[in-house]
Amino acid sequence: MIYFDNSATTRPCEAVIKAIDDQLGSGELYGNPGSLHKLGTNADKAYNKALERAASCLGCNKNELYFTSCGTEGSNTAIRGFVHRNKRIGNTIISTKTEHKATLEVLKLLESEGFIVKYVPMLSNGKPDLGSLSDMIDDDTVLLCFTHVNNETGALLPLEDIVKIRNEKKRDAAIFLDCVQSLGKLDIKLRNMGVDMATFSGHKIHSIKGVGMLYIRQGIKVDPLILGGGQQNNMRSGTQSLILAEAMVTAMEEAESRRDEAYVNISAVNAYLREELASRDAKILSPDDALPFVLNVSFDGFESETMLHCLEIYDIFVSTVSACSSKAKQVSYVLLETGVDRKIAANSIRLSFCRDNTMEEAKEFIGRVDEIYDLYLVKR
Amino acid sequence: MIYFDNSATTRPCEAVIKAIDDQLGSGELYGNPGSLHKLGTNADKAYNKALERAASCLGCNKNELYFTSCGTEGSNTAIRGFVHRNKRIGNTIISTKTEHKATLEVLKLLESEGFIVKYVPMLSNGKPDLGSLSDMIDDDTVLLCFTHVNNETGALLPLEDIVKIRNEKKRDAAIFLDCVQSLGKLDIKLRNMGVDMATFSGHKIHSIKGVGMLYIRQGIKVDPLILGGGQQNNMRSGTQSLILAEAMVTAMEEAESRRDEAYVNISAVNAYLREELASRDAKILSPDDALPFVLNVSFDGFESETMLHCLEIYDIFVSTVSACSSKAKQVSYVLLETGVDRKIAANSIRLSFCRDNTMEEAKEFIGRVDEIYDLYLVKR
Repeated sequence: MIYFDNSATTRPCEAVIKAIDDQLGSGELYGNPGSLHKLGTNADKAYNKALERAASCLGCNKNELYFTSCGTEGSNTAIRGFVHRNKRIGNTIISTKTEHKATLEVLKLLESEGFIVKYVPMLSNGKPDLGSLSDMIDDDTVLLCFTHVNNETGALLPLEDIVKIRNEKKRDAAIFLDCVQSLGKLDIKLRNMGVDMATFSGHKIHSIKGVGMLYIRQGIKVDPLILGGGQQNNMRSGTQSLILAEAMVTAMEEAESRRDEAYVNISAVNAYLREELASRDAKILSPDDALPFVLNVSFDGFESETMLHCLEIYDIFVSTVSACSSKAKQVSYVLLETGVDRKIAANSIRLSFCRDNTMEEAKEFIGRVDEIYDLYLVKR
Repeated sequence: MIYFDNSATTRPCEAVIKAIDDQLGSGELYGNPGSLHKLGTNADKAYNKALERAASCLGCNKNELYFTSCGTEGSNTAIRGFVHRNKRIGNTIISTKTEHKATLEVLKLLESEGFIVKYVPMLSNGKPDLGSLSDMIDDDTVLLCFTHVNNETGALLPLEDIVKIRNEKKRDAAIFLDCVQSLGKLDIKLRNMGVDMATFSGHKIHSIKGVGMLYIRQGIKVDPLILGGGQQNNMRSGTQSLILAEAMVTAMEEAESRRDEAYVNISAVNAYLREELASRDAKILSPDDALPFVLNVSFDGFESETMLHCLEIYDIFVSTVSACSSKAKQVSYVLLETGVDRKIAANSIRLSFCRDNTMEEAKEFIGRVDEIYDLYLVKR
């Protein structure tokens, strides 16, 4: 089996499985961190230790981090919570139309509530038009929402430029960054990035599903999305799950320790695939400088879903669009927004890699693509 | 160790641990249920199967159930989502001041948004005054929020009466029921209960923390709290966690299969403790007809936290107030609202049981209470 769909989700790694087993086997750490007795305080200490470890991975303070149930919850909390709490800063949000649905759907809701949302046009290199961005920011701007690495193309955000523009044009407009695809792949040190809020997901980095993290820079005020017992400094009520916190943090540490090696290996895999695919009837849709872990490619003569199922015959798993949109069977809005022709976008496949993918798998993939062309295309 | 704090949280049971191990060991079911390939569709099928099993436990249809991250998320979604979506029904919410914080804090927020919230007075038997309730419901009533079993006293809601009053006074006002403490202990068959929405939590019934369920009766419209990729029929976006779904549903099935036996055993434990404690310097604060799994008792001469820590010396774990409020070190608002004297409430301890607790533990507990009285009270 070749699993090239790691941007959709990843397989839990051994370190995470062991962390979960240790928790389940301990028989000691199931206490409610809110309880006053030893079972509670032990769980609370372990939970705080997990927060410290996460803060160390992300280069921030532990009181700037909150555990969430997923990346989507983080986006909802940050975007809605910030603009609701900071109406004095402004009423206009700036973003792009290539964001994840977790951002786009929240922006739609906010528009219905009376907020103004402006979308920066995207260039064919997958980056927002910074001139337009600069023109758009004005006194009414409250929030900028961007994605660190696009989940469908791997396009990298010019974050430093964006921070610089924000700082020049309106210093108190906040920046929210969706880091779901960059976590564990890029060096994320939040303290130095100029970002005010960021969301992270566990299951994209070999944790189990059902846990994520939200970063809110010290001093930034955000209304909580989920109210109740006041857990996590009132930012996220609901009994804390130590076992999910351990799964998340273990995955982060494991990703961090293998990040450099993975980047080198996957860069080679990506370069090989780009060259081999370009020499066939395939068009590379990911930008040249994209994160190597994502490679979007359009196969001439094969609609996305056809190619996906052809590859599946060989136990090779890829995706068409984002898994969060795939059931709708639409052509990728991300590709269309960056100017890709609809016919080319309709034939696109996303290959997305993790640190465990190998050059051997890439070679096998190319061989199978050749077989598919031989077997199916000529017959039609 | 004697763990009498099961209303705060429970230890994951063997069946749940096995279900998690099976998932982690399968290496097959980690796909994103939104993916179009076999790893995705297999995960999606298993997820739907988990929904079916949950629906079977709860006596409802599977399209009326949603997995959430916790009971609190369910309360937030149901209450906020219903009143926002159904403004044409009315603008007034009716509840009580003995609800869990997950309800009370949402009601506070809604008041700040302009909704009117009326609180039914509580009687000394732990039940809402039904005459007042009947008088309060009018044309403007949109929602009634109640708790099936109070988490601090075990008080049972007179649900049938409330449904009858609602049906007579305003049929389209919805009923939201917090079932976090009743799940697995009472027979919950949602189809016949007259309830429109209900929330459930996994970690109160020996699942791991980080998963719950939300019931929304067919035909009831609710705005989602978490927006994004449109998972779970657009009601709860975010990649579904099959492993958490399995943990939740396995816990529900296990609880259901042992429910009758547990009820009989814990009723005997509760009756024994009531008799023994009443014959000492203790006052039983749980109503006579409360759910036997919760026993709130006030010890003369011992403040709540003192008694908690005295018991802890013997590895006996109990709680003062709800774990969600305990850090604030306040006297139980639930007890005060039902007319308990502040001095008596300040000495209250909650014993909360699970199916694994035994009469031997109850006897040991009484022995230790006697020791504590002998050792500490006379010295002061």
